[in-house]
Amino acid sequence: MQGRQIKRCGLFSLTLLATFLHCSCLPHSTGGKPFPETAKEIASYTKVAKSIIDLAVYGKAQNRSYERLADFTDTIGNRVSGSKNLDLAINYMFSALRKDGLENVHLEPVKIPHWVRGEESAMMLQPRNHTMAILGLGSSVATPQGGIEAEVLVVESFEELKKRQKEAIGKIVVYNQPFVSYEETVQYREIGASKAAEVGAVATLIRSITPFSINSPHTGWQDYQEGVQKIPTACITVEDAMMMARMAKRGQRIVVRLTMNAQTFPDADSFNTVAEIIGSEHPEQVVLLSGHLDSWDVGQGAMDDGGGALISWEALSLLKDLGLRPRRTLRTVLWSAEEQGGVGAQQYFQLHKVNISNFNLVMESDLGTFSPLGLQFTGSAQARAVMAEVMKLLKPINTTTLEQHGEGVDIEMWMDAGVPGASLHVADSRYFWFHHTNGDTMSVQSPIEMNLCSALWAVVAYVVADLEEMLPR
Amino acid sequence: MQGRQIKRCGLFSLTLLATFLHCSCLPHSTGGKPFPETAKEIASYTKVAKSIIDLAVYGKAQNRSYERLADFTDTIGNRVSGSKNLDLAINYMFSALRKDGLENVHLEPVKIPHWVRGEESAMMLQPRNHTMAILGLGSSVATPQGGIEAEVLVVESFEELKKRQKEAIGKIVVYNQPFVSYEETVQYREIGASKAAEVGAVATLIRSITPFSINSPHTGWQDYQEGVQKIPTACITVEDAMMMARMAKRGQRIVVRLTMNAQTFPDADSFNTVAEIIGSEHPEQVVLLSGHLDSWDVGQGAMDDGGGALISWEALSLLKDLGLRPRRTLRTVLWSAEEQGGVGAQQYFQLHKVNISNFNLVMESDLGTFSPLGLQFTGSAQARAVMAEVMKLLKPINTTTLEQHGEGVDIEMWMDAGVPGASLHVADSRYFWFHHTNGDTMSVQSPIEMNLCSALWAVVAYVVADLEEMLPR
Repeated sequence: MQGRQIKRCGLFSLTLLATFLHCSCLPHSTGGKPFPETAKEIASYTKVAKSIIDLAVYGKAQNRSYERLADFTDTIGNRVSGSKNLDLAINYMFSALRKDGLENVHLEPVKIPHWVRGEESAMMLQPRNHTMAILGLGSSVATPQGGIEAEVLVVESFEELKKRQKEAIGKIVVYNQPFVSYEETVQYREIGASKAAEVGAVATLIRSITPFSINSPHTGWQDYQEGVQKIPTACITVEDAMMMARMAKRGQRIVVRLTMNAQTFPDADSFNTVAEIIGSEHPEQVVLLSGHLDSWDVGQGAMDDGGGALISWEALSLLKDLGLRPRRTLRTVLWSAEEQGGVGAQQYFQLHKVNISNFNLVMESDLGTFSPLGLQFTGSAQARAVMAEVMKLLKPINTTTLEQHGEGVDIEMWMDAGVPGASLHVADSRYFWFHHTNGDTMSVQSPIEMNLCSALWAVVAYVVADLEEMLPR
Repeated sequence: MQGRQIKRCGLFSLTLLATFLHCSCLPHSTGGKPFPETAKEIASYTKVAKSIIDLAVYGKAQNRSYERLADFTDTIGNRVSGSKNLDLAINYMFSALRKDGLENVHLEPVKIPHWVRGEESAMMLQPRNHTMAILGLGSSVATPQGGIEAEVLVVESFEELKKRQKEAIGKIVVYNQPFVSYEETVQYREIGASKAAEVGAVATLIRSITPFSINSPHTGWQDYQEGVQKIPTACITVEDAMMMARMAKRGQRIVVRLTMNAQTFPDADSFNTVAEIIGSEHPEQVVLLSGHLDSWDVGQGAMDDGGGALISWEALSLLKDLGLRPRRTLRTVLWSAEEQGGVGAQQYFQLHKVNISNFNLVMESDLGTFSPLGLQFTGSAQARAVMAEVMKLLKPINTTTLEQHGEGVDIEMWMDAGVPGASLHVADSRYFWFHHTNGDTMSVQSPIEMNLCSALWAVVAYVVADLEEMLPR
């Protein structure tokens, strides 16, 4: 996932408000059908849910999503927007989905950003020589050839930068903001460069957005603000940011040479990758399952978001293996260029929103496929009541939680437009330790956890797609 | 600390045996004086121990050891055996100890290994291109110019290597041994190269010795066995070792190009750094406190072993500040070239063993200065009984534990020769996450924890040095 989570805070509040407004009429009805009947209908899926779980967790499909993810990420490696590797990944997945016997496997063209990191380095020259581990931030401009050599100003916050703005002129601003939460702290990565440029800085180095580090830089997208000078920007490690802060506090003069050869090319051609199990009664109505195929250009992109993509495939495989064809269509979409701001998903929305009334539920997994807890859900109180019943089917694997709000850059426009949305909710305490680093590899994934995620994903998608009525809005 | 812990297992058994043999006569006596009198004598230090703790933890010296360590490691950086940085570190510390007003500050010449890493890289060429994070192992030879390009054989153990030895000929052997414990698993780093060379391998890549990784390679010393071809050897990350193991299991051919420019120069001149508070009654009798000043050539060497060195200085500072001069001499020794096998400490032992009867207690801190629990102690049952009483003085900071065996490459020869030895025992569950990596920086240190370590170190050293009688052997 990338970093546009601030928006979700607003979404969250709206959702809470919606819940509040609706709660007086809950759970009297779910669309046309009285709620008790719907609840009874859902309970009738207990056996089929059990068979899906058995297949995924204990049966022939055990560890399959993990093995598929390992083969995919070991074969392709990372796959950043615009790269040849992303093309290879899309080809790999297109072939794999067809070979798996899924229906309507096809690619939908999108245009995506094409930013290339190039060689980059940061060397502290004063008070002593020290080579820093860095990762340029996505969309950053390059430094002039030979790099930028400048004194450093260390600040802990935007407020401090504002107070000391006169000192920033001609300097490299180092943000040493403490990690509070990803949602709150990521703003330094997203807009730190422009904030510093506004007060005359020549470059920025931003403490990586993570609560834990083994000298690990974390990359990510950043946004230049309109009308502000574009200056080079990279993330540094927590360790180096803290060290420079200590040096500055001692009154030591810090000089750094930053060299970045990043380049932005014209938008590239890419595809969202689609596969389906076509609905038996309402093929035009859709439950959408999704994850993104692109990753950052470091590590393997196993956690972000290979796992999400793979369980969205696996869910369909499981249902196909069991010969389960729901009333509505199950559609897996593997997005392109999520990390650059949900670019593939935005284009998908523009293309398909004309059919918005046929979108029953949109699902996204992009916060890791670790030990699952349940779902985060956005929708009306009536829809929530239905989903709560669906989640009870997951009792055999103890993943029945239904949290208050769905997250996800790639589905938020659907949710904003009123379509019920669900995100996989996992025990993800270490997610941001590895996020956008070289440590995002298969070593953080567990086959057992992926079995559980796949089972949950398949049960929810199947049952919601097969109910007599669509989810109420 | 470096990796020669296997020896300690033997030591541990001997210690247990010694304890067993002695326990029938415990705690009747402690040398010449009846034990109850010694216990009473120790209890009389309650107030002075409290004053040391107050100064270190709550008083003027609060956070001083941390601040000193930060200044030292931020100023010098890492300081591997034979490097200019180690010379700078010794000069820095010599000046600092003198400036602090300690007594008999001097340097004792030693000869130390001089191995230089040089440029190094490992590139996977098949089944796909992938740049691996590596760190050559200390004492490794270089590759021929242009590197070694060879197929990889992945094994999980020495047993598997033996079984598949015919396959190893001409290959780069990758050890993907699981992490069991540092003591057990480090043998792959220490002797893996020679084991592979014996069966015809051309180089080795060894999975880093750690239970946790964010794509972090861990370096360390390795030992070529006599009469075996010396082949280049480096550590790789857990992630890359696991990936190559998965690829091998799929039957994929793996080809790697390893390039290392490591060089071994003639032994270099260096020093153990010494400072004292000279004893008032028995200046020739010594309680020795120690840590090592050298580190690996990555990170800052804050944890390994800046912290140990700094609290061994801080303990003397605290006592000096309080005007406390014990009967015997307190001697802080900051070793050179521990990481290459306790090289400075060995030479110190050879030089000073003639006075072994005057060595009352040897102390070493080299497993991190994290939250302290107490001491690991090696000595007779009578000595242990005395130490147990001393540890009771640390009740105010709840660090009264006295574990069964002392560890420490730099003091083990004294303990082997019968001198009581104590190592700082800390809650070190994350120690090996950072050990010998670029993540060994000030960011893993806590001022509060270092205050506690310093207090413990000072109380134990002072009281043992001031008791009427030396510790019984």
